[in-house]
Amino acid sequence: MGILSLPPHPLLFELQYEPGMRQDLQTVLPYLLRIDAAHILMLSGQGLLAPTAAAGLLDVHGELESRTLRGEIPFETAGPHRGLFWLYEQHYIHRLGREVGGAVHVARSRNDINATVARLRARDELIRLLDRLGDLLDALMARAAENTETVMSCFTHYQPAQPSTLGHYLAGIGAELGRTGEWLAAAFDAVDRSPMGAAAGAGTSFPVDRELVARYLGFSRVIENAADAVASRDYLIQMLSAAAAMGIALTRLGHDLQQWSSHAYRFVRWPDDLVSTSSIMPQKRNAFVLENIRGLAVRPSAALVNCLMAMKSTPFSNSVEVGTEAVAPAWPAFAAAGDALRLMALLLRHMEVDRGQMLAFLDGAETTMTALADHLVARHGLAFRTAHDAVASLVRELPKAPLATAAVVATRLQAILAAAAVPPISLDRQAVEETLDPARSVMSARHGGGPAPAAVRRQLDGLGEIRARLKEQVAGWRRRHDEADVLRQQAAAAIRGQALRS
Amino acid sequence: MGILSLPPHPLLFELQYEPGMRQDLQTVLPYLLRIDAAHILMLSGQGLLAPTAAAGLLDVHGELESRTLRGEIPFETAGPHRGLFWLYEQHYIHRLGREVGGAVHVARSRNDINATVARLRARDELIRLLDRLGDLLDALMARAAENTETVMSCFTHYQPAQPSTLGHYLAGIGAELGRTGEWLAAAFDAVDRSPMGAAAGAGTSFPVDRELVARYLGFSRVIENAADAVASRDYLIQMLSAAAAMGIALTRLGHDLQQWSSHAYRFVRWPDDLVSTSSIMPQKRNAFVLENIRGLAVRPSAALVNCLMAMKSTPFSNSVEVGTEAVAPAWPAFAAAGDALRLMALLLRHMEVDRGQMLAFLDGAETTMTALADHLVARHGLAFRTAHDAVASLVRELPKAPLATAAVVATRLQAILAAAAVPPISLDRQAVEETLDPARSVMSARHGGGPAPAAVRRQLDGLGEIRARLKEQVAGWRRRHDEADVLRQQAAAAIRGQALRS
Amino acid sequence: MGILSLPPHPLLFELQYEPGMRQDLQTVLPYLLRIDAAHILMLSGQGLLAPTAAAGLLDVHGELESRTLRGEIPFETAGPHRGLFWLYEQHYIHRLGREVGGAVHVARSRNDINATVARLRARDELIRLLDRLGDLLDALMARAAENTETVMSCFTHYQPAQPSTLGHYLAGIGAELGRTGEWLAAAFDAVDRSPMGAAAGAGTSFPVDRELVARYLGFSRVIENAADAVASRDYLIQMLSAAAAMGIALTRLGHDLQQWSSHAYRFVRWPDDLVSTSSIMPQKRNAFVLENIRGLAVRPSAALVNCLMAMKSTPFSNSVEVGTEAVAPAWPAFAAAGDALRLMALLLRHMEVDRGQMLAFLDGAETTMTALADHLVARHGLAFRTAHDAVASLVRELPKAPLATAAVVATRLQAILAAAAVPPISLDRQAVEETLDPARSVMSARHGGGPAPAAVRRQLDGLGEIRARLKEQVAGWRRRHDEADVLRQQAAAAIRGQALRS
Amino acid sequence: MGILSLPPHPLLFELQYEPGMRQDLQTVLPYLLRIDAAHILMLSGQGLLAPTAAAGLLDVHGELESRTLRGEIPFETAGPHRGLFWLYEQHYIHRLGREVGGAVHVARSRNDINATVARLRARDELIRLLDRLGDLLDALMARAAENTETVMSCFTHYQPAQPSTLGHYLAGIGAELGRTGEWLAAAFDAVDRSPMGAAAGAGTSFPVDRELVARYLGFSRVIENAADAVASRDYLIQMLSAAAAMGIALTRLGHDLQQWSSHAYRFVRWPDDLVSTSSIMPQKRNAFVLENIRGLAVRPSAALVNCLMAMKSTPFSNSVEVGTEAVAPAWPAFAAAGDALRLMALLLRHMEVDRGQMLAFLDGAETTMTALADHLVARHGLAFRTAHDAVASLVRELPKAPLATAAVVATRLQAILAAAAVPPISLDRQAVEETLDPARSVMSARHGGGPAPAAVRRQLDGLGEIRARLKEQVAGWRRRHDEADVLRQQAAAAIRGQALRS
Repeated sequence: MGILSLPPHPLLFELQYEPGMRQDLQTVLPYLLRIDAAHILMLSGQGLLAPTAAAGLLDVHGELESRTLRGEIPFETAGPHRGLFWLYEQHYIHRLGREVGGAVHVARSRNDINATVARLRARDELIRLLDRLGDLLDALMARAAENTETVMSCFTHYQPAQPSTLGHYLAGIGAELGRTGEWLAAAFDAVDRSPMGAAAGAGTSFPVDRELVARYLGFSRVIENAADAVASRDYLIQMLSAAAAMGIALTRLGHDLQQWSSHAYRFVRWPDDLVSTSSIMPQKRNAFVLENIRGLAVRPSAALVNCLMAMKSTPFSNSVEVGTEAVAPAWPAFAAAGDALRLMALLLRHMEVDRGQMLAFLDGAETTMTALADHLVARHGLAFRTAHDAVASLVRELPKAPLATAAVVATRLQAILAAAAVPPISLDRQAVEETLDPARSVMSARHGGGPAPAAVRRQLDGLGEIRARLKEQVAGWRRRHDEADVLRQQAAAAIRGQALRS
Repeated sequence: MGILSLPPHPLLFELQYEPGMRQDLQTVLPYLLRIDAAHILMLSGQGLLAPTAAAGLLDVHGELESRTLRGEIPFETAGPHRGLFWLYEQHYIHRLGREVGGAVHVARSRNDINATVARLRARDELIRLLDRLGDLLDALMARAAENTETVMSCFTHYQPAQPSTLGHYLAGIGAELGRTGEWLAAAFDAVDRSPMGAAAGAGTSFPVDRELVARYLGFSRVIENAADAVASRDYLIQMLSAAAAMGIALTRLGHDLQQWSSHAYRFVRWPDDLVSTSSIMPQKRNAFVLENIRGLAVRPSAALVNCLMAMKSTPFSNSVEVGTEAVAPAWPAFAAAGDALRLMALLLRHMEVDRGQMLAFLDGAETTMTALADHLVARHGLAFRTAHDAVASLVRELPKAPLATAAVVATRLQAILAAAAVPPISLDRQAVEETLDPARSVMSARHGGGPAPAAVRRQLDGLGEIRARLKEQVAGWRRRHDEADVLRQQAAAAIRGQALRS
Repeated sequence: MGILSLPPHPLLFELQYEPGMRQDLQTVLPYLLRIDAAHILMLSGQGLLAPTAAAGLLDVHGELESRTLRGEIPFETAGPHRGLFWLYEQHYIHRLGREVGGAVHVARSRNDINATVARLRARDELIRLLDRLGDLLDALMARAAENTETVMSCFTHYQPAQPSTLGHYLAGIGAELGRTGEWLAAAFDAVDRSPMGAAAGAGTSFPVDRELVARYLGFSRVIENAADAVASRDYLIQMLSAAAAMGIALTRLGHDLQQWSSHAYRFVRWPDDLVSTSSIMPQKRNAFVLENIRGLAVRPSAALVNCLMAMKSTPFSNSVEVGTEAVAPAWPAFAAAGDALRLMALLLRHMEVDRGQMLAFLDGAETTMTALADHLVARHGLAFRTAHDAVASLVRELPKAPLATAAVVATRLQAILAAAAVPPISLDRQAVEETLDPARSVMSARHGGGPAPAAVRRQLDGLGEIRARLKEQVAGWRRRHDEADVLRQQAAAAIRGQALRS
Repeated sequence: MGILSLPPHPLLFELQYEPGMRQDLQTVLPYLLRIDAAHILMLSGQGLLAPTAAAGLLDVHGELESRTLRGEIPFETAGPHRGLFWLYEQHYIHRLGREVGGAVHVARSRNDINATVARLRARDELIRLLDRLGDLLDALMARAAENTETVMSCFTHYQPAQPSTLGHYLAGIGAELGRTGEWLAAAFDAVDRSPMGAAAGAGTSFPVDRELVARYLGFSRVIENAADAVASRDYLIQMLSAAAAMGIALTRLGHDLQQWSSHAYRFVRWPDDLVSTSSIMPQKRNAFVLENIRGLAVRPSAALVNCLMAMKSTPFSNSVEVGTEAVAPAWPAFAAAGDALRLMALLLRHMEVDRGQMLAFLDGAETTMTALADHLVARHGLAFRTAHDAVASLVRELPKAPLATAAVVATRLQAILAAAAVPPISLDRQAVEETLDPARSVMSARHGGGPAPAAVRRQLDGLGEIRARLKEQVAGWRRRHDEADVLRQQAAAAIRGQALRS
C-alpha cells in the first residue's frame, strides 16, 4: 500500500484492524457513504470529476448504500487489510477501474473524513439524547403538575426543613435537568460544522466548494482553519460535560427518590414490575433501578476524564490519540446516559405517591417552626433573630410526639418571650394553629420561588417553555438533515441525467 | 445559638470554623456585604423594614464595607464561634440593638445567601478568566498575522506532512481557544441569575421583590424555583469544563511549542529571561515554563472531577457537600488556569521565530509529495490513487538527502508511471520544480482552510470577530455590575434621606 | 546565572518564582537542609570534600537549620531571583567564599534533590495519615465493641434486610478502612527509596556512596537507575489511590451515619457541639460535619486525576510537569483526607446510640422473613426456594402494622404451604415466635461472618491485629528516621573533630 | 417471582435484563458454575444436603458446564425474565423437581455469589495483565541488554542533557513498569478472599464451612465480616490504580519512542508492517500504533474515576451501584491496558536502532559540558559552582557547529577562568578531548545509577529479579486455581460414589 512494502503485522491486525473493522462497518460506513456522496457531487459540480465518472461512482455508491441499509457487509473485509477506508476505495477501483474508482480521493484525506464522521455521529447522538431528556422532562412536568398540592416536607441536611410539595421538588430538579438540556443543545452548535476540504490539515490547491459539501451533509457551517478541522474534537468535551452534569442531576433525583421510597419514608412506591425481590429475603421489594440509573449516570463523567486525558499534550494536528482514542469511549457513555434517562422517565411515570404517608411524616417533624418565627415578625413586629431564638427555646421545651397543641405552643412561646424581656405580645391561638399547619404554610409560601401551588405552576410554565424550545431546535436540526438527504438525491439525479446526455 | 446549648467542639472549631473564617473574611465577606445592602434596600422598599432601621443598618454596613476595603478585619472573630455569618449578624446586634440589628434576616437564609455569594464570585472569576484568555488571543493573533508567510512544515503523527506556515498553525489553535472563550461566556449566562428570596429552599411568605434584589446585585434574572436556587451549583460544571477544554488546548499548544523550541527543531527560541538553566548542566536553556503551563492547565480538569464527585448522589436541596465542598477547589483551579493563560501570552509575545531553520528542516522532509501527486491529477489527469502510488514508489527510490533535483524527480516519475501502464505523460521540469517548492505549495493551498496567506488572514479575521464579541460581552457585564453599585448607592441615599425626614 | 544573561522576566517572577519561594520556605527548605547535611557528610566521608570545608559548610548549615526551626526566613529572599535553591547556595557562597560555599553541588543536581524532597515529604505525609487513620480505627473498634449486641436492621437497597447489629456494621466498614491502611503502608514501601546520586538523571563519575546518603536520610534503599530516580513520581499514584479508596469508604460510612441520624431513622444522635442549626429554621440540628467529611474525602480522587493527567505523555526524564505540577495538588488533598479522618473519629466517639429506636424500627420491617424461610428448611426440610416462595406469599397477605402474631403467621404459612402441595408440616408456634424475634435472629447468625456477638468480636480481633501491625510499622519508620537524625549528628560531630585536629 | 406479582416491565427488560443476560452468559455463568459446585460440595460435606440430592445437582451442573464450555447457551433465556440467576435456578428445578432443584440456595444469596464472581473474574484479569506486562518486560530487558553501549543523549525539558545510552533509558522506564507489576500483584492479594457464606450480608444460621468453599474456589482466605463481603469492591480501586500507573508509564515510553522515531530525531525506526501511510501523503510512514497505545493506556484511569464515582456515597451494604455499575467499566479498561502492553512489546521487539544517527545528534548538542565542569573539579580542584559558571561562559562563546576542538575549548576555558580570578590552572588537551567525548563520558558515569554499561547491567539484573518473582507468583496462583479444580472434581466424585452406595 503506497510506500509500505508489507501488510500489517499479524498481531497488529488482530488487535487493531480486525476489531476496528467490525466496529466501523456498523458505526462509520453509513456516515462514510454520506460523505462520499457529498464529495463526489461537489467534485462534479466544480468540474473536478467528469459527469460519467461521477455517475459511475454514484451507481456503485448507491449499491453499497442499499446493501448497508439491509444490514449486509457490502464488500470483502478479509484480512490482512489496513482498515475500512482502503477496502472501501479498493471496492470502487475493482468495480470501476483505476481511472474512475481511484479518482474520488482528491482534495480530501482520511483526516477530514474521520473528523466529519465523528461530527455526524455526535450530531445524531445529541439528537437522541435530547429526545430522551425531553421525554423525561415531559414525565417530570406531568408528575409535578399533578402534585402541586401534595404537601411534603422538604429537607436540608437530611432533616425535615419546611413544608413544601412534591410538585415543588420536581419543578426544582426539572429546572436543573432543563438547563443540562440547553447545554446539550449548545454543544450541538459546536458540533455543527463541516471539516471537509481540510484534507490532511493543510487544505488543498483544488478549488473545492466547502459550503456546498457542508450543505449536502446538513451542516450549517464549515470550519475555517484546516488544522483546526482535523486536530480538534473539543466539542466532545462540551457534549460530555453537559451529559455529565445531566448525570449528576439524575444521581441527585435518584438519591432522593430512593430515600423516599425506602421503608423509613414510604412517600412513594413502585409497582411490582419496576422493583426486584431478593433471592433469600422474601419480603424485599428493591428499587434497584435507581441504583442502575445512578451508576449509568456517572459514565459520561468518566468518559469525559478519558477524553481530557487522551487529548492532553497531543500535537495540535491530526492525531489517533485525539481522533480515535479520545472519541471511542464517548459513544457508550452517551448510550448509558440515554438509558438512565429512559429508566428515570419510566420510574417517574409509574411512581405511586402516598400523600397520607407524607402528611404523617410531617407530624412531629417541626417543619413549621420557621413559619412560627415569621408569624412573630409579620404579626407582632419582632426582629427575626429574636423570634427565631424564642422558637428555638420552644422547640427545646416541647415534647416531640404527639405534637403539642396550638394552645400549648402559644402559652409557652409567650412565656419564653416574656422571659427574654421582649415587649409583651399576645398570640392569637387561631393564628398559631394555622401557622403550625404545614398545608397552610405551603399556601403562603408564594414568594421567592416557593411551593405555593400557583407559584409552582408558574415555575412549570417556565420549564415547559424550555422544553418546547428544545423540541423545536431538535425538530429544526432533523429537518435540515432530511433536506440534505434530498439535496444529495436531487444532485445525484442531475448528474446521472448529465451523464446520460453526454 | 438557637436550639444548640453548646459552642462547637474545639476540634470542629480548629478544623472547620477557624480556617473557614480565615478564608471567608477574604472571599465571602465582600460579597456578603453587597448582598446585605441589596436585601436591606429591598426590605425597606417593600415596607418590611422601617426607614430608620434601614438607615441604621446601612450605616453599620457602610463602616464594615470601608474597613473591609482597607484590608482590615472589621469585627471580632475570636473563637469559639460558628462562622462568619453569625459573627457578622452579632456585630449588627451589638451595634444597633436586638430590635434593629436582628431584623435583617427576614425572608432569607444562609442558604440563598451562600448560593448568591458563589454566583457573585463565579461571575468575577469568569470575567477575570475571559480577560486573560482575550489577552492570549491578542498575542496569538498578532504572532499569527506576522507569520502568515513563515513557511514551516506541518506535522501529523510527529512526521513532516505538508508545507504550511506558523501563522496557519496559530490561527488553528487560536480557533480552538476562541471556542473555549465562547463556552466560558456561555457559562456566564448560567451563572447570571439571582437566588435571593429562595431562603432555605422553600421561598417565603413575605412579599419580597426578587427582581429588585437581582438588579441591585447586577444579575439579569432570578432563579424561579427556590429548591433549585439553593440546591444547584451546576453552572460550576459548565465553567470548569470550559476551563478544562481551554486547558487541554493549552497543553497541545504547549507541547508543540516545546517541540519546536527543542534542539531537534530550533524553529523558535525564547529569550534568557523566559528560560532557566541547570544547576549542573552549564549549557542548558530550558523552556520549563511550558511545563508549568501544561501542569497548571490540567487543574480545571481535576477540579471538575472533584465537583462532579462531590455533587454525586447528594440530596437536591441545600447541601454542604455541594455548596461548600464541590465549590472550594474550583477557585484555585481557575486561578491556575488564569496563570497558565498569562504565562502562555508572555511566551508567545517574546517567542523568537527562526525562519531559516524552518526552511532548512523542510529540506529532505518530502513535504511536497502530496503536491506532486496533486500535480499529476490536476495537470495530467491521473486518478489520485494512481498518482499517489506512483509518488510513493518515487519516494522509496529517491535518495533522502540531499534532495533529488526536479530533473531527476521528473525522469524517475515518468519511468514509474510508464511501468504502471498509465498512458504516457510528459512532465514539465519547470512545473515539477515549482511543485517541489514548499513556499509555492503554501501559496497554492488556498482552499479548504489551507495555509495560503490570504486564507489565513481571513481565518484570523473570523477569530478577531470572536475576540471582539467576547470583549464586548465582558464590557457589558462590567457595565451592568457597575450600574448595580450605583443603584444601591442611590437607593441607600434615598433611604437615609427618608430616615432623616421621618 | 550560568549561561543566562538576564534575571527572570518580571511576570514570570510574579507568577512562579515569588509564590514558589513563599511555599518552598515552609515545605521544601527543612527537607533541603536534611539532604544537604547528608550530602556534605557523604562527600566528606568519600574524600570529595576536605574536612575543614565540610566543617565550615556544616556550621552554616546548622545556623540555617536553627533559624528555620524557629520559623525565621534564614536568608535574603528578595527578587528578582530564580528560586530557593539558587538563593540557598548563594548564601553559602556569601558566607564561606566561592571555594567552599560553591563546592557542595558536586555529584548531585536539583533533579535528584527535588526527587528526594518529594519522597521525604511523602513519607511524613503517609505517617501523618496513618496516625489519623489508626485513631479512627481505634474509635470505630471501640464503638463496635460496645455495640455487638445493639440490634439494628441491616439494609440492602435502602430497604430493611435482616436483623444485624451496629457492631457488625462498624466491624464491616472498619475492615475496609483497615485495608486502605494497609495500602497506604504499602505505598510507604514504594516511597522509601533514595534518589540521591542520580544527579540530573545520568548519575555521576564521582565515587559517591549512595547507600550512606540513604541511611543518613532514613531511607531503606536507593533507586538503582538514575533516570528512574529523577523521572518517576509513580508512588504518588499509589498514595493517592489508597487515600482515594479510604475517602470512598468514608463517604459510605458518612452516608449511612447521616441516614441513621436523620429524623426518619433516629438510630443515632450527635451532641450539640457537633451539629449546627439553621439561621432561619429554629428546630434544625444538622449533622453537617458528615457532609464536610464526604466532601473532603473525595479530594484525593481529584488529586489523583490531576496527578495522572499531569504525568500523561511526559518524557521519562526530569520534568517540571511531573516533579512539580503533578505533585503540588497532592499535599492539600492528603491534608483534606487527614481532616476527614479526624472529623469522623470525633463524630464516632461522640455518637449517641438509641437502641430503643433501632428496635422500634424493626417492628413491621419484616426483617426476619429470611429467618422464617431458613426455619422451614432447617426444621422442616423444605427446599429453600419453596420456603422462600411461601414466606413471600405470607408477606403479601399479612397486615403491615401492627405486625401479625406468631400464631397468625404460623397458621397462614401452613395454609400457604398446603395450597402449594408441599407435604404437610406442622409449625411450632413457640419456634416461630423465636424465629420472628430480631434479637434471636442475630444470635443465631453465627456463621458466614454474621452479626452474632461472638462472631463480631472475632472480626474485631482480626481488625485489631491489622491496627496493631500498622501501628508497629509506623513506629518502626519513625525509629529509623530518628536514627538517621542521630547518625547525621554523630557524623557531623566527627567531621568537626577532624577539622579541629587538622 | 416471590413477592412480586408481575414480570419486569418491558422497557426494563429491554434496557437491563436482556442485555445483561447476553453479557452474563459469557462472563458470569462460567464463574457461577464454579461457585455452585463449591457450594453444593460444601453443603453436602456439612450434611446440609443429602448425597443423592447433591449428586443429582452435580449431574445437571456437569451438563451445564460442558455445554457452556462448548459455547452453547445451556438453558432457555427467552424473556420476560429477571436475569441469569433466576433462569439458572429454574433450570435445576425443572430438571430435578422443586425439592432437589430448589434446595441449593441455602446459606447463600445472590449478594455473596455476585461478590464472588467479581473476585474470580478480577483474579483472572490480573493474571492475564501480569502475563502481558511480563512479556513486555522481557522485550524491554532484551532490548536494554543489547543497547547498554548504544550511546545516546538523554534529555531533560526536551533539551539534550548528558550522554547516556538507550539501554540506560530502557532500564529506567523498565524499573517503573516493574513496580506497577508489583502493585498489580499486591492487588491480587486484596482480591484473593472468598465472600461465600456472607449470604445477603448478615451471614447465616446454617453451619457452613467457608474455608472449604474458599479452597474449592482457589482462594487463600475468606472475608471475615459478612457486610464487608457483599458491600466492598475496594480491590478494584487498587487494581485500576495499578493499571492506571502502568498506563501512565506506557504513555511516557510511548511519547519518547515517538519523538525518537520522528523525522527530527530518527534514533529508531519501525518496519513497514508496524507503521501506516497516509491516504494523500505518499511519503508518510506513521508510527500511529504509539498513539493507540497512549490512548488505550489512559482507559484504566477513566475506569478508576468511574469506579470511585459510582461507589461514592453508597450505603455500605450490597448495592447495585457498587457491585454492578462500579465494576462493569473496569473489564474493558483492563482489556485495553492488556492490548497496550501487547502492542508496546511488539514495537519494542521490532524497533530498529540507528546508532549512527544517535551519535550524529550528539555533535553540537553540548552534552559533555557537565563532564567538563566535573573535570575541573576532579582534576583541578575547582569548586563545582565556579567550574559550572566557567563552562557556561564557554558555551556562550563557542560556535555551535561544527563543535570546537579540544584545543580551542581548553584555551578559551583557561582564559575564562583566569578572568574569573581563579588560581591559574593548566588544562591537559588530551584530557579535555577525552572529557568532551560522549562515549567516554558514558563509560565514566559508573556511580549514582548512571549509564556506564556495567552499572546498567546491574540495574537490569535487579529488574530481572522482579520479573522472575512476578512470574513465580503468577505461576503459584495458577497452580492453586488448578488444584481447586482438582479438589472439586475429587469431592464431586466422592459424593457421586456416596450417592450410589446410599
